[in-house]
Amino acid sequence: MNESEAHASLGKLSVAAHAKYRGKIAVRVKMPVETMDDLSLAYTPGVAAPCLEIQKRPDLVYELTSKWNTVAVITDGSAVLGLGDIGPYASLPVMEGKCAIFKRFADIDSFPLALKTEDADKFVEAVSLLTPGLGGINLEDISAPRCFAIENKLKQLCDIPVFHDDQHGTAVIALAGLINALKIAGKKIQDIKIVINGAGAAGISICKMLAAEGAKNIIICDRLGAIWRGRGNLSDEKKSIAALTNPDQENGGLENLMKGADVFLGVSAPGVVSRGMIKRMAKGAVVFALANPEPEIYPGEAKSAGALVVATGRSDFPNQVNNCLGFPGIFRGALDVRAKEINDEMKHAAAYALASLVSGSELGPDYILPGVLDNRVVAAIAGKVAEAARATGAARI
Amino acid sequence: MNESEAHASLGKLSVAAHAKYRGKIAVRVKMPVETMDDLSLAYTPGVAAPCLEIQKRPDLVYELTSKWNTVAVITDGSAVLGLGDIGPYASLPVMEGKCAIFKRFADIDSFPLALKTEDADKFVEAVSLLTPGLGGINLEDISAPRCFAIENKLKQLCDIPVFHDDQHGTAVIALAGLINALKIAGKKIQDIKIVINGAGAAGISICKMLAAEGAKNIIICDRLGAIWRGRGNLSDEKKSIAALTNPDQENGGLENLMKGADVFLGVSAPGVVSRGMIKRMAKGAVVFALANPEPEIYPGEAKSAGALVVATGRSDFPNQVNNCLGFPGIFRGALDVRAKEINDEMKHAAAYALASLVSGSELGPDYILPGVLDNRVVAAIAGKVAEAARATGAARI
Repeated sequence: MNESEAHASLGKLSVAAHAKYRGKIAVRVKMPVETMDDLSLAYTPGVAAPCLEIQKRPDLVYELTSKWNTVAVITDGSAVLGLGDIGPYASLPVMEGKCAIFKRFADIDSFPLALKTEDADKFVEAVSLLTPGLGGINLEDISAPRCFAIENKLKQLCDIPVFHDDQHGTAVIALAGLINALKIAGKKIQDIKIVINGAGAAGISICKMLAAEGAKNIIICDRLGAIWRGRGNLSDEKKSIAALTNPDQENGGLENLMKGADVFLGVSAPGVVSRGMIKRMAKGAVVFALANPEPEIYPGEAKSAGALVVATGRSDFPNQVNNCLGFPGIFRGALDVRAKEINDEMKHAAAYALASLVSGSELGPDYILPGVLDNRVVAAIAGKVAEAARATGAARI
Repeated sequence: MNESEAHASLGKLSVAAHAKYRGKIAVRVKMPVETMDDLSLAYTPGVAAPCLEIQKRPDLVYELTSKWNTVAVITDGSAVLGLGDIGPYASLPVMEGKCAIFKRFADIDSFPLALKTEDADKFVEAVSLLTPGLGGINLEDISAPRCFAIENKLKQLCDIPVFHDDQHGTAVIALAGLINALKIAGKKIQDIKIVINGAGAAGISICKMLAAEGAKNIIICDRLGAIWRGRGNLSDEKKSIAALTNPDQENGGLENLMKGADVFLGVSAPGVVSRGMIKRMAKGAVVFALANPEPEIYPGEAKSAGALVVATGRSDFPNQVNNCLGFPGIFRGALDVRAKEINDEMKHAAAYALASLVSGSELGPDYILPGVLDNRVVAAIAGKVAEAARATGAARI
C-alpha cells in the first residue's frame, strides 16, 4: 500500500467509526437525579438556593457550577485542518475530536460550537456573550488573517482565557522542540538564523514566540517570499512581524533565504523544500517540516542532505510536533487557577515544561519531544502554566 | 418544621450538594481515544474524511457527529424560576439541572449556555449562529414580553427546533392535566369558562393552546385585571390575546371574573385566590394553582371550598404540573425525526400523549397526570411528537 492508498484506507475507517459512534462526546450526569428528593435538590425548588448564593457572591459560580472545568471549542469552519474553508457543519468532526482529547488527556469537559457566520464582527460579538458558564475558550480552525483580529478583540471582551490553538498551541510545541533541538546542535537561540516558511496563524505565532525567546535573526516567508519592512501591501499583522524580524532586510525566495540558516521551520505546503536547500543550511541544521500530512521535506531526505534534527507533524516519524501535546495541559493549568487569560508567560512556561520532559542521555536527534501518550505531559505543563499565571497576576486563585 | 423552615433546610442541602459535585453534568468520551491509532481515526489525519463527507452531503452531519442528539439550554438569566432577573451566572444551576434531566429522562446530550446580554437583538443574533452543531434549542427563563419576540425571531432564523420551555412546556402539561380534569368534571372545553391569572410567558402560551383546543370563553388577567379589547396600553402580545379571548368583554378583578368559572388556572403569585372565590365558581370547579413554591391557593382550602380537581406545581400534593413531564419527551421526539421546528401540532400531540397515560378507573380527582418518575412518559410523548412532526412536514426523516 502506498502513502495515498494508506491515507484513503484510513479515511474510510474513520468515516465508518464516526458513523458507528455518531459523535465523539456525550453528557454524563454527575449529581443524582433519580428520585423526587434528588430532583428537589438538583432542580426546583432546592436549586433556587445555589442560584441566590451565586447572585450574592459571583465567584461562587466556580464552586457551585461546572464553569471551573468547562471549555468551549469554537470555530467558524473557515480553515479546518489542511482542508480550508469547509464551513461550520463539516468542521464538527474535528471540533468533537478536540473535545474528546480535552476529556481523555486533561479531564476537561468541553463541547463544540461551530458558528454559522463568515462575519468576524458577528463571530466576536456572539462568542463574547457566551462566557458566563465557561472557564475558557479554545478558538479553532479560523482562517488567517481574520483569526488575529478575532482573538485580540475577544481577549479584550472576555474575562476568561481565549486561546487560538492553531496559533499558540502549535507555537508552544514548536518552541519546546526547538529548545531541545538546539541543545543537541549546541547552539543558542540568540545567535542563530531561523527561516520560517508560512505566515498564517501558526507561522506568525511561532515567529512572535521565538522573538520573545531572544531570537534575533528570524526571517518569515509567505507565498511571495521573505517579509521585510520595505515590501508593499503587507497586512497589519505582517507589518508588525516585519518590524520584529529580518534585521538584514533579506528578500527573495526560500532558496536564497535558507543559505546558512541554522533552523528551518515550515508550516506551509507539501514538498516545498529540496535536498539542495537543506545542503546549503549551516552545519547542525534543524528542520521542522510541519505541513501535514505531507511535510515540506520528508525526514529521510532532509537527514541525507545533512540535517541534524528533523521533526514533522506526523506520528509515523520521530519527533512529532502534535498540538495534542499542548492544549490539554495549558487549559488544565489555566482552569486550575481560574485564569483570566493565557498570557505569553504561561505559553513560554508550557513550552519549557514540555521540553524538560526529555533530557540527559534520553535526549537525541530522534527524541526531542515526549510522545502524545506520555502521561507526564499534562501534569507537567499544567503545573508550570498555573505557576506562571499566579506569577503574572492572571490567576484568580 | 414549618414550611419556611423546610424550604430553608432544603436550600442548605442543595447548596451543599452543588458544592460537592461542582456542576451537574460532565463530558463522556464515546469514541476511543486511547492509542495513537484511535487518535488517527478520531482526530488527525483520519478525521479529514468525515469532514469532507459532510461537506459533500450536508445531511450526513446527523450521521457522523453528535448533532442528532444535542440540545443547548440557553438563557439570559432574566427570569429565573420565581427569582426574577438574577443574571446569567446565577442562572447556571437551573440550566445545568435541566441538562441533567434531559440526559436522565430522554438520553439527550445537552449543555447550558448563559448569555451575558440584556439586549434581545444581540441575544437573537448570537443564538442564531449556534445551530450547526445543535439538534435543538431549549430557551429557558427569559423574561416576558421579550421572550415572545426572541422566540419568534429565532424560529424564523433557525432550521432546528427553538422551544421556550417556560411558555410551551408549561402549556403542554397544563393542557394534558386539563384534558383529564374535564373528563372527571364531565365537561367539554368548548362549553366552559376558563380564567387564567398571569399573562407572562406561561399564561399567554397556555391561553393560546387552550384557544387552539377549542376553548371559546377564556379570560386572561394580568396585574391590572382582565385583558379585553378596549383596555389601553396593551403590549402586542396581549393585544393578540385580547382578540382571541374574553368574548363578553368582561373586565375588573379576579374576584368578579371567577364567578361561575369552570376552570381557574393560575401562573401568578402566592395566595391570590381565596376560598370565597372558589365557592363562587361553577359546580365541579377545576383549579390549577401553579405558582411555585407557594400556590395561589392550597389544595386543602380549594377542595374545602368546593373544587373538584386541584393541581399545583408541587411534588408534595397530588396532580403535580411539572415541566419535567414535558420537555424531555418533546425534544426526544423532535430529535428522533431531525425536526426543523416544534410546531403547535407537535405540542398538542405531546399533551394528548401525556393525558392518555392516566385513564379508566385510575383517573380521578387526585390522579390526573402521571408522576415525573413514571418511565412511560418520555416514550409516549416522543412517539406522538415524532408522528405529528411527520404529519405536518416538520420532520427531516
